[in-house]
Amino acid sequence: MSKIAVVPGSFDPLTNGHLDIIKRAARVFGDVRVAVMNNSSKNSLFTVEERMALIEEVTSVFPNVKVESSSGLLVDYAKSVGASVIVRGLRAVSDFEYEMQITSMNRFLDESIETFFIMTNNQYSFLSSSIVKEVAKYSGEISGLVPMQVEEALKKKYQTR
Amino acid sequence: MSKIAVVPGSFDPLTNGHLDIIKRAARVFGDVRVAVMNNSSKNSLFTVEERMALIEEVTSVFPNVKVESSSGLLVDYAKSVGASVIVRGLRAVSDFEYEMQITSMNRFLDESIETFFIMTNNQYSFLSSSIVKEVAKYSGEISGLVPMQVEEALKKKYQTR
Amino acid sequence: MSKIAVVPGSFDPLTNGHLDIIKRAARVFGDVRVAVMNNSSKNSLFTVEERMALIEEVTSVFPNVKVESSSGLLVDYAKSVGASVIVRGLRAVSDFEYEMQITSMNRFLDESIETFFIMTNNQYSFLSSSIVKEVAKYSGEISGLVPMQVEEALKKKYQTR
Amino acid sequence: MSKIAVVPGSFDPLTNGHLDIIKRAARVFGDVRVAVMNNSSKNSLFTVEERMALIEEVTSVFPNVKVESSSGLLVDYAKSVGASVIVRGLRAVSDFEYEMQITSMNRFLDESIETFFIMTNNQYSFLSSSIVKEVAKYSGEISGLVPMQVEEALKKKYQTR
Amino acid sequence: MSKIAVVPGSFDPLTNGHLDIIKRAARVFGDVRVAVMNNSSKNSLFTVEERMALIEEVTSVFPNVKVESSSGLLVDYAKSVGASVIVRGLRAVSDFEYEMQITSMNRFLDESIETFFIMTNNQYSFLSSSIVKEVAKYSGEISGLVPMQVEEALKKKYQTR
Amino acid sequence: MSKIAVVPGSFDPLTNGHLDIIKRAARVFGDVRVAVMNNSSKNSLFTVEERMALIEEVTSVFPNVKVESSSGLLVDYAKSVGASVIVRGLRAVSDFEYEMQITSMNRFLDESIETFFIMTNNQYSFLSSSIVKEVAKYSGEISGLVPMQVEEALKKKYQTR
Repeated sequence: MSKIAVVPGSFDPLTNGHLDIIKRAARVFGDVRVAVMNNSSKNSLFTVEERMALIEEVTSVFPNVKVESSSGLLVDYAKSVGASVIVRGLRAVSDFEYEMQITSMNRFLDESIETFFIMTNNQYSFLSSSIVKEVAKYSGEISGLVPMQVEEALKKKYQTR
Repeated sequence: MSKIAVVPGSFDPLTNGHLDIIKRAARVFGDVRVAVMNNSSKNSLFTVEERMALIEEVTSVFPNVKVESSSGLLVDYAKSVGASVIVRGLRAVSDFEYEMQITSMNRFLDESIETFFIMTNNQYSFLSSSIVKEVAKYSGEISGLVPMQVEEALKKKYQTR
Repeated sequence: MSKIAVVPGSFDPLTNGHLDIIKRAARVFGDVRVAVMNNSSKNSLFTVEERMALIEEVTSVFPNVKVESSSGLLVDYAKSVGASVIVRGLRAVSDFEYEMQITSMNRFLDESIETFFIMTNNQYSFLSSSIVKEVAKYSGEISGLVPMQVEEALKKKYQTR
Repeated sequence: MSKIAVVPGSFDPLTNGHLDIIKRAARVFGDVRVAVMNNSSKNSLFTVEERMALIEEVTSVFPNVKVESSSGLLVDYAKSVGASVIVRGLRAVSDFEYEMQITSMNRFLDESIETFFIMTNNQYSFLSSSIVKEVAKYSGEISGLVPMQVEEALKKKYQTR
Repeated sequence: MSKIAVVPGSFDPLTNGHLDIIKRAARVFGDVRVAVMNNSSKNSLFTVEERMALIEEVTSVFPNVKVESSSGLLVDYAKSVGASVIVRGLRAVSDFEYEMQITSMNRFLDESIETFFIMTNNQYSFLSSSIVKEVAKYSGEISGLVPMQVEEALKKKYQTR
Repeated sequence: MSKIAVVPGSFDPLTNGHLDIIKRAARVFGDVRVAVMNNSSKNSLFTVEERMALIEEVTSVFPNVKVESSSGLLVDYAKSVGASVIVRGLRAVSDFEYEMQITSMNRFLDESIETFFIMTNNQYSFLSSSIVKEVAKYSGEISGLVPMQVEEALKKKYQTR
């Protein structure tokens, strides 16, 4: 039986940096669940359903990747799907400290779930959903930073506003 | 006459990490004032009065610890109670830079007040009021992270919402 | 023909730290444009016009410094004025990571525009517009931290509230 | 067939922090190789053979852990044993930047090998082989920081000097 | 009876940054011991005796400051003089992580000894004994960075080489 | 008359990261001096003459770049060639703090010389002379990381050892 790994995030929206992490997790683990975390306290540009649909389209080529959503604690979600591993990307020192805090808390809540960090590819180390949205909002060039489908979705969002 | 030391914070709510800093300050200084800073720009879960009541209950065993509140500049509060020392906990690099900024400003405003930093116990280095609230909100386990009284208060808050 | 350099920022309001960066840029580059970025998502204390007027007053002694405003992408603004250089101040590690992200994105958008960073003078390394506003709000002493004109403007703002 | 994971290090000597990383890797991956890297440019207290013997003793209870040594590039070693995963512990920001540099280089040399990072348990976040040696040298208490066998080996080393 | 505080360091040689920390410790604690740590593994420019003599000269005006030396573990030294407090200066993030490691180890060895950190004055935040030696070696200007006596001692050292 | 800018470093040996900084400095400043700093306390692989020869070969296409060497303080060298600007690359947080220390000292020694920092291209952010030498030593692939001439020079160095 293969190990189940969760790749959690807000994915508002998916960037090529996120996609890189998902692909690399899918090469190592037999069953990868992308979990769109529904953190109600953040204002999101895309609804959870829109974010899931975009990730599903883009990752449909990977047979061992499924897209789901969760609105509670990450460890509760991981347990409910039988996952023993969480995979997260790390870009910078500030990521590192925040992730260290979250991971320590998750280990406090359930020590049987292991969190693995992957260094984001250098080429994507400056990418974040927020900066992509900021650029898209002012009609800046974002192709190469997000999948084609996300690029179109962003253009639609900012036109209709 | 013993030195007066201030332990300032939002304490929304008190965690075991905060309590560790208060205890250690109380071992070194004769008169310790826990100052609940009433920073109106932050949305708080507990009122200043609720926060003070919780700290008072938990620290009632330390005869040299008093709980107070302040809504102005920390150095003005310190001067008003005759304190010459401020004690703060440090957990991480991000804390460090923020605290360095605040402390430099406080020294600019009043050089006679000294700020001492204590490294938070490793076991609490990932703890913050925010992460405790996040976990409590989703009914995660928080015993061991906050005093019993705070645990109960958190449960009540999230039930009644 | 002299090089045009942009010094961008929110300047809400201008501090002596900002002024130091502007002066030093003006010593190296023949034509310096201070660009007040109109980032609508941040709540500002001063309007763009008020911020520009304060900077103009304070920098009127430098013949090669002009004050402008922009509400789009920084690289678009830079291109529109023919600037090939952006100058930014660096105070701390947290600045550094944020600036690295922005600069990488700007280089992605237009590689011909170079960003130069200057280390903020030690004496201003703790200064930020936010901390100055926080202190001014509680009537703390800010002279020495901001130009005289800004000091007066801050006093007026907080009186009339 | 199970995935082969390498846990590389100097291990001069093994600490409880290292042991924690090895154990956690062995829970996730079917075949774990602890690789004692023979970096000739560092002065080591224990020979490669002594370090391997100590790790073998301590990890003999884990059937899927083998101890080996390598004196070349880590990616060459990983390829030679058919490993597709490298597992490293992260303690602090300084670790993070160093590891990011090494991992980027390893990905440049062979992109098919993935490096996973695990956050070191809080309780061991201050532990390093160097600090343990420093304390042992002055007869300080190290039980709880290293396995019993390592404690004895350290005592012998510093007695015979 | 007043609290005894230790200010440990290599002091090779004393800088104005060190002196600032010693003075500020002497304002808060009744009995301050400057402890020149004799770490044999570092190549020092000045002998322990020379370093102690310089500190004694410079701090002779403070009646509650004594200069001593120690060649073992800091906590053993602190215990031997009855000190319950260690005072250290913090300049930068890299200091912070190193000090966090040392302090955690010291707390492991003896929890009754508290370490307090003071943020170094901005004006000295770039100062270190190493950089002062580097500048003095090439006859650069160091007055203002070290006490006059240290300035003279450095000039003598580099002349006689 | 054009501004003179110094790009200082050990360049032991030149990497594509260094070359990127030199090129970008040469686009902004009319006269660029690459200064090979002869820091006698570091063990270098290449002699100052070898390092200068390699840089000269690689940068011969840039008419406004000259290669020189210096063995004293950087600010003294800068003054002696009439330079008013120093240009340095920044890769990571650890670079940042070290550079901040050096730059503050240089400003103390001569405030009229300005230091500008450029963020290293993401693609070279993990590159350093040390890591290149480490890989070359074990016959790892380094093409793409250093200019062709440096690649050959490294191969010769490690063969003849």
